[in-house]
Amino acid sequence: MVELLQEITRPELNRGLEGVVVDSSSLSDIDGDAGRLIYRGYEIEDLATGASFEEVLHLLWHGELPDRDELEAFVEPMAQERPVGDGVLELMAELARQDEDPMAALRTGVSMLSAYDPEPDAEPEDMAAMARDGRRITAKIPTVLAAFDRYRRGEEPIEPRADLGHAENFLYMLTGEEPDEIAAETFDMALTLHADHGLNASTFTTMVIVSTYADVYNAVTGGIGALAGHWHGGANQDVMYTLMDLDESGLDPIEWVEQTLEEGGRIPGWGHRVYNVKDPRAKILEERSALLAESTGETKWHDYTTAVERYLTDEIGLPEKNIAPNVDFYSGSVYYQLGIPIDLYTPIFAMSRVGGWMAHILEYVEDNRLIRPRARYVGPTSQEFVPLEER
Amino acid sequence: MVELLQEITRPELNRGLEGVVVDSSSLSDIDGDAGRLIYRGYEIEDLATGASFEEVLHLLWHGELPDRDELEAFVEPMAQERPVGDGVLELMAELARQDEDPMAALRTGVSMLSAYDPEPDAEPEDMAAMARDGRRITAKIPTVLAAFDRYRRGEEPIEPRADLGHAENFLYMLTGEEPDEIAAETFDMALTLHADHGLNASTFTTMVIVSTYADVYNAVTGGIGALAGHWHGGANQDVMYTLMDLDESGLDPIEWVEQTLEEGGRIPGWGHRVYNVKDPRAKILEERSALLAESTGETKWHDYTTAVERYLTDEIGLPEKNIAPNVDFYSGSVYYQLGIPIDLYTPIFAMSRVGGWMAHILEYVEDNRLIRPRARYVGPTSQEFVPLEER
Ligand SMILES: CC(C)(COP(=O)(O)OP(=O)(O)OC[C@H]1O[C@@H](n2cnc3c(N)ncnc32)[C@H](O)[C@@H]1OP(=O)(O)O)[C@@H](O)C(=O)NCCC(=O)NCCS
Ligand SMILES: CC(C)(COP(=O)(O)OP(=O)(O)OC[C@H]1O[C@@H](n2cnc3c(N)ncnc32)[C@H](O)[C@@H]1OP(=O)(O)O)[C@@H](O)C(=O)NCCC(=O)NCCS
Repeated sequence: MVELLQEITRPELNRGLEGVVVDSSSLSDIDGDAGRLIYRGYEIEDLATGASFEEVLHLLWHGELPDRDELEAFVEPMAQERPVGDGVLELMAELARQDEDPMAALRTGVSMLSAYDPEPDAEPEDMAAMARDGRRITAKIPTVLAAFDRYRRGEEPIEPRADLGHAENFLYMLTGEEPDEIAAETFDMALTLHADHGLNASTFTTMVIVSTYADVYNAVTGGIGALAGHWHGGANQDVMYTLMDLDESGLDPIEWVEQTLEEGGRIPGWGHRVYNVKDPRAKILEERSALLAESTGETKWHDYTTAVERYLTDEIGLPEKNIAPNVDFYSGSVYYQLGIPIDLYTPIFAMSRVGGWMAHILEYVEDNRLIRPRARYVGPTSQEFVPLEER
Repeated sequence: MVELLQEITRPELNRGLEGVVVDSSSLSDIDGDAGRLIYRGYEIEDLATGASFEEVLHLLWHGELPDRDELEAFVEPMAQERPVGDGVLELMAELARQDEDPMAALRTGVSMLSAYDPEPDAEPEDMAAMARDGRRITAKIPTVLAAFDRYRRGEEPIEPRADLGHAENFLYMLTGEEPDEIAAETFDMALTLHADHGLNASTFTTMVIVSTYADVYNAVTGGIGALAGHWHGGANQDVMYTLMDLDESGLDPIEWVEQTLEEGGRIPGWGHRVYNVKDPRAKILEERSALLAESTGETKWHDYTTAVERYLTDEIGLPEKNIAPNVDFYSGSVYYQLGIPIDLYTPIFAMSRVGGWMAHILEYVEDNRLIRPRARYVGPTSQEFVPLEER
């Protein structure tokens, strides 16, 4: 009877925090049934096709799309922040020698940036300092990542150029050549599409970290850690590796899918905690992927992807179980067609999502509360201690 | 009417996740009203006074206190893992030159460890690999931290010794001398006291990170980030800095407390989300602090602390508002009396809490679910997009 009462009165278990509302936010909203995503009220389609990533950062961080003057005042100082200290470059060279995974290299590189921050001793509650740190980190992530990639290819890093846009400059630092218009535009669009997405696991990680009044370097480093996971940002690489495996093995994509599902495995790039239908970002990237395939004449990757989608939709009926393509399903083939190394896809996600992390961090600390949930204790309650000698 | 209905039916807001139960756990339990803490059913007092930190790690990670043979089989290989790669030492030297904060240096150092992991390519679900990574990181944290501290003092790092206990070896690597018995015992006790504490913010951070199937290096790096915060692990340094400020300024501790509270400030080392009474760990450390003061004859720090506690209790009546001393209130004066630099107190907390992080990580992924809450969107819902040229 006592146990029954305890059972009834004890708080419910919220595994995965599904549906648990942690905070109010005016940053982005997902309608999981309609497949709609907005940033501060703007449709993601409009932003992806009509605004640059920098405009979107301004929208997220300052609440409004900038006019020309505001944009310039925003972009200029951030572009000046792109270079990183020699110590960070040396770190990247060493990590490249150790054949480190790029996402781990980015995590360590971003963590190290705090050592070179010219104004390190801000009060924990100083929100202007947090915003400034966030701009610095956002500006430097592409530099860190491009340097790592070049070192591991045996090349020297290329200095960032302040006259290029955020997306363009990254592609330039990777290759040493200014990207063509379609590549720059596609990459900028991808950054916008990934910039914010409610309280996904990495954004939530950054919020938990700053809720202790730890600084932004701590938070963003932790966010990169969460984004690395296969069930989160890591899925975009998994999609492409899967497609390549299929291509090499000569296996029929359909057979592979069948087998994976039979064994209880998951299809990377499918399913989402919040979307019950196809992710609107996937639709936009699918169109881009088609466009790129058309312009290059190499249609195989795009074709694999659409074949798998058609099969999972028409034959297996996954969407009837609310499992549909998410943003990662088409980003892989888009990045591949841009010639970006596969293991940079997830770091690129971080390059974009840092915008959302910073926006949520600043929104949260404005009215900070320590994030500290509970566990239901189910272990033994009274064990008699016996010293080592008598065990 | 529609709005009223929406208001009633929308899910409640759980700011700070207070009281929200995320998972079952058989690791540690806090009775916040009785001021009781157990690890797997054992009273924290018994473990702190009767078991070594290594025994406690075994308890947390393997479910039971080890007998002699089990302990040896557990401790030996972990002690062999203490050395770190040259690249990590060089990183520490560079961070020391940059005058980096030790907690940030530890974060970057731990993040870099993954590059030297001899078995980096485990499957995400491979729990044996996760446990192994956790043992490696736990073994190496003291080495990373001691190396950093020595570099910034202009000294070469000291190689870890596998024949010393975890606590003892750290103190040895800091100074080059084996610590006396009371120092070694006190430090070991402090590690046990800080090892686990339910779903505190840093432990929860590590769980959110691994819930994406990111690896243990990601999770522990993120945990260090959260622990750094002033409302979490950072409080132990804040306590000591406050006491020193008081000492230097000649201000009366009582006056300082009065003024702080009047200005709406917080007393570091006081208050806790879960405890409504004095933290049992604070009681144990208070006794240790008294013992150390007695043995050295320098009683000032201990006296300040007890004076502040007495005043807050008897005059201000903070405990009546459920605000009482937490573990950090007495750890500061204990570490100070052991001669440890103040800005190492929070990294030392990490050296211990990594035990709890790993235990919760392994417990959580056994039945993994992505941790992904929601925000209540309160921003605009339909904004008409106007291109930059027309803004
Ligand atoms: C993203 C993700 C973790 C969200 O999952 P979630 O909300 O926690 O959902 P659950 O893990 O509870 O899964 C619900 C059910 O759908 C199934 N499912 C979810 N995603 C699936 C996928 N990609 N392929 C096959 N089955 C899937 C689960 O196996 C589970 O089935 P069950 O109830 O029979 O056990 C999940 O969809 C996933 O792992 N996707 C693949 C990785 C990915 O693309 N991540 C990037 C997201 S942007
Ligand atoms: C640990 C801590 C964040 C837990 O806080 P919480 O459960 O989120 O509690 P809240 O922040 O909602 O605080 C509740 C009330 O107690 C007050 N309070 C909490 N800790 C206090 C402290 N150390 N000194 C003075 N007032 C304190 C708050 O100001 C608040 O008052 P209000 O209701 O009038 O605004 C908080 O006690 C704190 O900041 N302590 C100081 C830092 C510290 O020692 N941290 C280490 C913990 S191991």
